[in-house]
Amino acid sequence: MTSNIKKIGVLTSGGDSPGMNAAIRSVVRTCAFHNIECLGIYRGYQGMIEGDFKELGPRSVNNIINKGGTILKSARSKEFMTVEGRKKAHESLVKAGVNALVVIGGDGSFTGAEVFNSEYNFPVMGIPGTIDNDIFGTSHTLGYDTALNTVVEVIDKIRDTASSHNRLFFVEVMGRDAGHIALNTGIGAGAEEILIPEEDLGLERLLESLKRSKESGKSSSIVVVAEGDKIGKNVFELKDYVEENLPEYDVRVSVLGHMQRGGSPSCFDRVLASRLGVKAVESILDGKSNFMVGLLNDKVALTPLEQAIKGHTAIDTELLRVSDIMTT
Amino acid sequence: MTSNIKKIGVLTSGGDSPGMNAAIRSVVRTCAFHNIECLGIYRGYQGMIEGDFKELGPRSVNNIINKGGTILKSARSKEFMTVEGRKKAHESLVKAGVNALVVIGGDGSFTGAEVFNSEYNFPVMGIPGTIDNDIFGTSHTLGYDTALNTVVEVIDKIRDTASSHNRLFFVEVMGRDAGHIALNTGIGAGAEEILIPEEDLGLERLLESLKRSKESGKSSSIVVVAEGDKIGKNVFELKDYVEENLPEYDVRVSVLGHMQRGGSPSCFDRVLASRLGVKAVESILDGKSNFMVGLLNDKVALTPLEQAIKGHTAIDTELLRVSDIMTT
Amino acid sequence: MTSNIKKIGVLTSGGDSPGMNAAIRSVVRTCAFHNIECLGIYRGYQGMIEGDFKELGPRSVNNIINKGGTILKSARSKEFMTVEGRKKAHESLVKAGVNALVVIGGDGSFTGAEVFNSEYNFPVMGIPGTIDNDIFGTSHTLGYDTALNTVVEVIDKIRDTASSHNRLFFVEVMGRDAGHIALNTGIGAGAEEILIPEEDLGLERLLESLKRSKESGKSSSIVVVAEGDKIGKNVFELKDYVEENLPEYDVRVSVLGHMQRGGSPSCFDRVLASRLGVKAVESILDGKSNFMVGLLNDKVALTPLEQAIKGHTAIDTELLRVSDIMTT
Amino acid sequence: MTSNIKKIGVLTSGGDSPGMNAAIRSVVRTCAFHNIECLGIYRGYQGMIEGDFKELGPRSVNNIINKGGTILKSARSKEFMTVEGRKKAHESLVKAGVNALVVIGGDGSFTGAEVFNSEYNFPVMGIPGTIDNDIFGTSHTLGYDTALNTVVEVIDKIRDTASSHNRLFFVEVMGRDAGHIALNTGIGAGAEEILIPEEDLGLERLLESLKRSKESGKSSSIVVVAEGDKIGKNVFELKDYVEENLPEYDVRVSVLGHMQRGGSPSCFDRVLASRLGVKAVESILDGKSNFMVGLLNDKVALTPLEQAIKGHTAIDTELLRVSDIMTT
Repeated sequence: MTSNIKKIGVLTSGGDSPGMNAAIRSVVRTCAFHNIECLGIYRGYQGMIEGDFKELGPRSVNNIINKGGTILKSARSKEFMTVEGRKKAHESLVKAGVNALVVIGGDGSFTGAEVFNSEYNFPVMGIPGTIDNDIFGTSHTLGYDTALNTVVEVIDKIRDTASSHNRLFFVEVMGRDAGHIALNTGIGAGAEEILIPEEDLGLERLLESLKRSKESGKSSSIVVVAEGDKIGKNVFELKDYVEENLPEYDVRVSVLGHMQRGGSPSCFDRVLASRLGVKAVESILDGKSNFMVGLLNDKVALTPLEQAIKGHTAIDTELLRVSDIMTT
Repeated sequence: MTSNIKKIGVLTSGGDSPGMNAAIRSVVRTCAFHNIECLGIYRGYQGMIEGDFKELGPRSVNNIINKGGTILKSARSKEFMTVEGRKKAHESLVKAGVNALVVIGGDGSFTGAEVFNSEYNFPVMGIPGTIDNDIFGTSHTLGYDTALNTVVEVIDKIRDTASSHNRLFFVEVMGRDAGHIALNTGIGAGAEEILIPEEDLGLERLLESLKRSKESGKSSSIVVVAEGDKIGKNVFELKDYVEENLPEYDVRVSVLGHMQRGGSPSCFDRVLASRLGVKAVESILDGKSNFMVGLLNDKVALTPLEQAIKGHTAIDTELLRVSDIMTT
Repeated sequence: MTSNIKKIGVLTSGGDSPGMNAAIRSVVRTCAFHNIECLGIYRGYQGMIEGDFKELGPRSVNNIINKGGTILKSARSKEFMTVEGRKKAHESLVKAGVNALVVIGGDGSFTGAEVFNSEYNFPVMGIPGTIDNDIFGTSHTLGYDTALNTVVEVIDKIRDTASSHNRLFFVEVMGRDAGHIALNTGIGAGAEEILIPEEDLGLERLLESLKRSKESGKSSSIVVVAEGDKIGKNVFELKDYVEENLPEYDVRVSVLGHMQRGGSPSCFDRVLASRLGVKAVESILDGKSNFMVGLLNDKVALTPLEQAIKGHTAIDTELLRVSDIMTT
Repeated sequence: MTSNIKKIGVLTSGGDSPGMNAAIRSVVRTCAFHNIECLGIYRGYQGMIEGDFKELGPRSVNNIINKGGTILKSARSKEFMTVEGRKKAHESLVKAGVNALVVIGGDGSFTGAEVFNSEYNFPVMGIPGTIDNDIFGTSHTLGYDTALNTVVEVIDKIRDTASSHNRLFFVEVMGRDAGHIALNTGIGAGAEEILIPEEDLGLERLLESLKRSKESGKSSSIVVVAEGDKIGKNVFELKDYVEENLPEYDVRVSVLGHMQRGGSPSCFDRVLASRLGVKAVESILDGKSNFMVGLLNDKVALTPLEQAIKGHTAIDTELLRVSDIMTT
């Protein structure tokens, strides 16, 4: 490859997710492999504005592939949403000799990258890092697989105590706009019911389902609820509603929260991060810009950033059906 | 040993905890070892009243030593708190030929056992099973060690995301009356501050400590809070209070909840359960009654049930000091 | 669906893998959903011959989705390799009223199913269950994803001690004919070198690579070796060879062995198992036979058993490249 | 406390164990708490000789409490076994202004410390760090509790596959001279037999036990073997012996190896390390030398190094009995 790219900047932005460090490592080592410099940008776009930079060589990313979080830290930057902020950021990059940018984050981060690219014609490449799996153009975002495992392990523990006491648990998992985590962990943890933003089960049907579950001989029940479920009640309201209408149930609530974002990444997320980092850097060296690298049909593939931001990965209706059958 | 005990009943009662199954297994196999029958009593004292029994032989407890929860299930029984309820329970036991009882549970369960013993002179022996470690006469209750590991593993994950975003997290752990879990996991997870029922830190000092922590160069903070902390605010109120007074902090809350009760027991809890089960059965065969078996100075030891109920294991002041020094 | 299928038999055969129980559960519950009976066949084809059967209803598979191993047990049957053995097996099935068979296992198990089908025109459907991921017609076999996580978690631990002592470790992982586990866990664990059956690195290049790794400033090294690596030396011989030629290295060996087959399945394996179970049963009800259900491009798909047995999922050359770049 | 100690050196030596980092962190922060400097000594005694030092402040040990291995690395030093080596080491320390030494390691490391102290009257304090729990003067060495959990988790996985195939597994665990790991994990994992260096079961009795186990209806068996077991056969020879004499058994072997030394420390080990680090530093400031800090009857306590080295923590005969009863 011949290219006028001499130095690539890399940053993480938005909510952190397991696999971000593995992606940073991959970007850094792929740069080294192609004899290009790599500049770590701390605290996302805010650090880009402030020039919070550090040169990263292949040994500076030793022993991070298995670490959760992001060594580059992340932050939301209001300043970068302004024209002046982006101007400062561009000056910082130019001053540091950076020719292209790899942005690891979610759709908010990609929007920033796209605007920046459109204003300064600055080469940008996105790597999808978020546990929510809500980005178009990739079957898996970095951290999603790890979060699924974290959630089913926790629900397995809750199941222990639920079945020891014949209780009903509402377990709230992340996913404000997308039910991927809820649907997959609900199936994986053997939940009796799953409430997601994409589908309005309705309170009536929930009650019926819980009644049926009890009659079928199940001694305990787990209902997995996505943050943004359509029913329009949060888990505490759901608890009250069910206790009022099904007094035979002893109901408890568990909100899993931020633990879902942390933890050592799964093997899948580590390998995916390694693949996407290679592809992101080599695509830049190939003269490409304004794309997201993702996984489609098990192959690394490019999707225009614009599509990645606007598109939407729909819930697989086959999975909804599997879920229904499993609660027989 | 010669004894007129022919059949021992075993039950789990109160909140479940990891290691209860290992203790059931040990009671069952120790009975078999001494050629005594063992009767499993389901759903605690309620199942005792209702005669919800099952004979347990050594093979019926195969492959449960590593399982959380309790195969005998647990329940709270209001009926057993009445004279009539205990009368029915006694009749059930007599009818089933049971000569003595092993009760695995916390102090509420032990109180029931003691009253039952006083009314019917029925041999009872207690095994402390609760994650809270709040029972006098044992350095460790069954499930406590496992819960400590569960909690630090979760806080490790929260730390990943906290330090990626320079955030402050309030993490609420179990312990309504006792701060053992909070104090030990706070030290173990490297928390910046620990709030427990036994000690009133005061809101002022909490703010000062958080300020100092930030000034010392720490980029993120974890505060572990026991459910029953003395400050008299729950974690959500604490969040509001700190955000108002220390606006530089981005504060989040995580309530760990029931997951702390579940999970495969640690090796320590499995071994402890095995030891206590042997001692409980052999003490009964030795003619003893109305004791709790526990661990004192690493040795299995008996404590009168009455003392176990009324006593209180104080927080170790050395640990409080270690906690202070570690947050230097 | 209308179909003359009234009862489906299900068995597990060959080496067990995590997710087999989840697949059994799915087959059983999908049968119940379609009002069909389901017969559990113990110990694979041998139990089929001996009539070692048990009716399975939806409640008999409660709480197994998260368990490793197989509740139906597995075995290799020499008798089933004979015409007489298969005749007995067929008689057993007919006597029990079984109309179709779901076989969960690897290619040896599928070969048995295919022969049985060809002799008796008995409807069979395969579900790929093996950690080796060496079956054509599916991107993932059941248990493969779990095994990858098990292996990287163990290598993470070995890395702790390796880097504390500046040591070189040869870690042998499963995969007699296929290097999928070695290649993916090698990348995931950040191994300095990966030896697989599909590629002959050569001893010379291994030595050079290790030398280069040391010179680049790495203080410890992990080499992941598939059982059937091409170099033709086992890990102990490799250790001797390297210590002779690179005396500066303190070399250790770790053979991971059977632990790789066990453990609670990952969320991915649980969901995959649920999906494949549904598809297997519904394909039978649809009149199909002699297929394997698998995952292709993230969709459940059918592949003729014959192809599944004879085909071969090649190592992805992109991954080999990623592996090379990551060891920069 | 008033003391002429201005700077304390800390090193890790011998085999690494989980909790060493937590102990380093505790030593560093306790020094800071008392306004004393702390010097990290890399690669044990060898780094002491070579002056491989780094000043450690409270922030330099952030986020290591949960990491396996040792950030100070460990090494065995032949040079330190010589008079000249120790002379160089002493000169290095004096030159660096170090007034006292905390040595984290096993009995080999303590022997070095004691000799060094006797030659130069240099204040030394030992912290027991080894997974083997073979040091007198402490009920628990750092890393022992973590190793127990690591081992039972692995045997749980092996049990999955063992019971799916009705197999017998010999699992070799660490412990050349001491059977603590084998005995506790054997009980914890529900092993059918446990072979330890302290007790000669005899091959005859092993065969009888295995026969009885099979007859009692157990479908699979796990035998946990300490490296240094008395029977005088390694696990591979045991396999051959049993297969010859009990052909009904399908026998497999698993050698757990170095993974037992790694991994994130358990909560217990993290708290213990924190306590021992405080005590070690404060004992030095108190004018004490040539002691090991340990845990006795759940309290931190000092034992003369000489005794710690020569003494021996015997296997608890109560545990042997529990083990026998559990295999009923």
